[in-house]
Amino acid sequence: MSLRIVFLGTAASVPTIDRSLPSIVVQREGDILMFDCGEGAQRQIIRAGIGLNRRMVVFITHMHGDHVLGLPGMIQTMSLLGRDRPLQIYGPPGIKDFMESIFRTVKFWLSFPVDVYEVSREGVVYEDRDYEIYGVWAEHSIPSLAYALAEKPRPGRFHPEKATALGVPKGPLWSALQRGIEITLPDGRVVRPSDVMDPPRPGRKIVYSGDTRPSEKIVELARNADVLIHEATLSDELAERAREEGHSTPSEAAQIALKANVKLLVLTHISARYSDSRILLEQAKKIFPNTHIPNDLETIEIPLPK
Amino acid sequence: MSLRIVFLGTAASVPTIDRSLPSIVVQREGDILMFDCGEGAQRQIIRAGIGLNRRMVVFITHMHGDHVLGLPGMIQTMSLLGRDRPLQIYGPPGIKDFMESIFRTVKFWLSFPVDVYEVSREGVVYEDRDYEIYGVWAEHSIPSLAYALAEKPRPGRFHPEKATALGVPKGPLWSALQRGIEITLPDGRVVRPSDVMDPPRPGRKIVYSGDTRPSEKIVELARNADVLIHEATLSDELAERAREEGHSTPSEAAQIALKANVKLLVLTHISARYSDSRILLEQAKKIFPNTHIPNDLETIEIPLPK
Repeated sequence: MSLRIVFLGTAASVPTIDRSLPSIVVQREGDILMFDCGEGAQRQIIRAGIGLNRRMVVFITHMHGDHVLGLPGMIQTMSLLGRDRPLQIYGPPGIKDFMESIFRTVKFWLSFPVDVYEVSREGVVYEDRDYEIYGVWAEHSIPSLAYALAEKPRPGRFHPEKATALGVPKGPLWSALQRGIEITLPDGRVVRPSDVMDPPRPGRKIVYSGDTRPSEKIVELARNADVLIHEATLSDELAERAREEGHSTPSEAAQIALKANVKLLVLTHISARYSDSRILLEQAKKIFPNTHIPNDLETIEIPLPK
Repeated sequence: MSLRIVFLGTAASVPTIDRSLPSIVVQREGDILMFDCGEGAQRQIIRAGIGLNRRMVVFITHMHGDHVLGLPGMIQTMSLLGRDRPLQIYGPPGIKDFMESIFRTVKFWLSFPVDVYEVSREGVVYEDRDYEIYGVWAEHSIPSLAYALAEKPRPGRFHPEKATALGVPKGPLWSALQRGIEITLPDGRVVRPSDVMDPPRPGRKIVYSGDTRPSEKIVELARNADVLIHEATLSDELAERAREEGHSTPSEAAQIALKANVKLLVLTHISARYSDSRILLEQAKKIFPNTHIPNDLETIEIPLPK
């Protein structure tokens, strides 16, 4: 069950020669989960070789242009390339008005249904068979969501030799146990799933802060996450300005990662003023050593826990 | 008086790894005249090293997304970088509704005035002291404009030795003659500007077709132009499809260039299916040899006529 993050755009509000505007894709098997869709996302997807006719859901954090203005063009290109699967878009209040205005004022031909949902409260935003997307309100200058992708726990490993030893015949009773159902054998003995299976294995978790000040809600959301992708727009020297503009510094992001006990901290939303992001990286690493700042189109694979 | 064309994006409706969506900039001295503003134009401007706080006017050909969706992000970036000069935008009916919808639905802060004008009839769209922008209706699937930038004729060269020989004293009378005013000397003799100056020198002309079928109106617009930038979305083999979709082939564009007696034909709006555009170039060159297909960020300088 592959799970990987592709950083399509790692800039803050102004793109640079090296960094496109904010957009992150999580590929889970065939599914594409996109977080934010800044201008240029469609071209970065093409560069990354990601198909545009996959099952796909988009999650927008907030209605600042640099996080949302790539949607119309991506949808147009998908149509021109003949996408036939529906596309679902989740975002804060205002996203429906934006998309409807685009469809009304720009000459569009849609080859597939686009369903837009406004997230109005915290909790589960989207549920798949295998994973859920949670949203909580971050702390920015306008309403902005932070999102978590959390896989549901997978059943523990099944041990056929234990089932056989207990006299459970191979077939439907094995399947029942594997699906978590307690069974009773013809001789009256009860066999529980835990008799033949290891404990459930935890799912993986990826959290994306969007634009935000350091937030206790994000600490909770990111608790024990495999990866926390946190914004670090401005360096520690500009902490006052970060506070005023609703952004975070590397040290602040690192504190969040430390409190949340995440495995890896990834900093993004890098201001155009930093042509070399190492200054930001060093500031974070002093507090949380396992920190990384990706380049555009870099990918991070998250292995299945053993 | 420098005049150069910078091809920010030369793709058709879908961007490729090599070609960004349609946008062309003409730099005339300090002025920036932008024709179409497809997604990604702002990043291409940054790549091209063109300043975002210059005197600038944008001309949109039509309301298909690939020609207009770069405007909101470019305006946002200009604001974030502190632009203080107004920006004027001209386009077909619908452009005002589009821009107003963006300003209403996307959280924007504007550091400068944005003035949007709808072009409803053919003729002079914009007039500067030194040049004019003309618009005519092209032939596309939706209302689409073709534009011409035409410099006004420059006064001919002034010959001081002729003025002196005619007894015109250096000073205000010279200036009057240079500005095209006939003067009378104290002794009653009349001196005409043509007595001391060469004939007016023609201005340069650049024409941009936007998306269109071959059009007689564009032939007239492009008459004797220095550069005709004409779309050639599909190769000659797909002529039928080009006709259906309101586009042109290289041979069709070359016929227009030939009829209009232009100096240079530049093909753009290259479909993503042509990873090598030479096939298009060869088809055009059979009819109009002085044809060129630029790469993104390529520039063409147009020298002053002697």
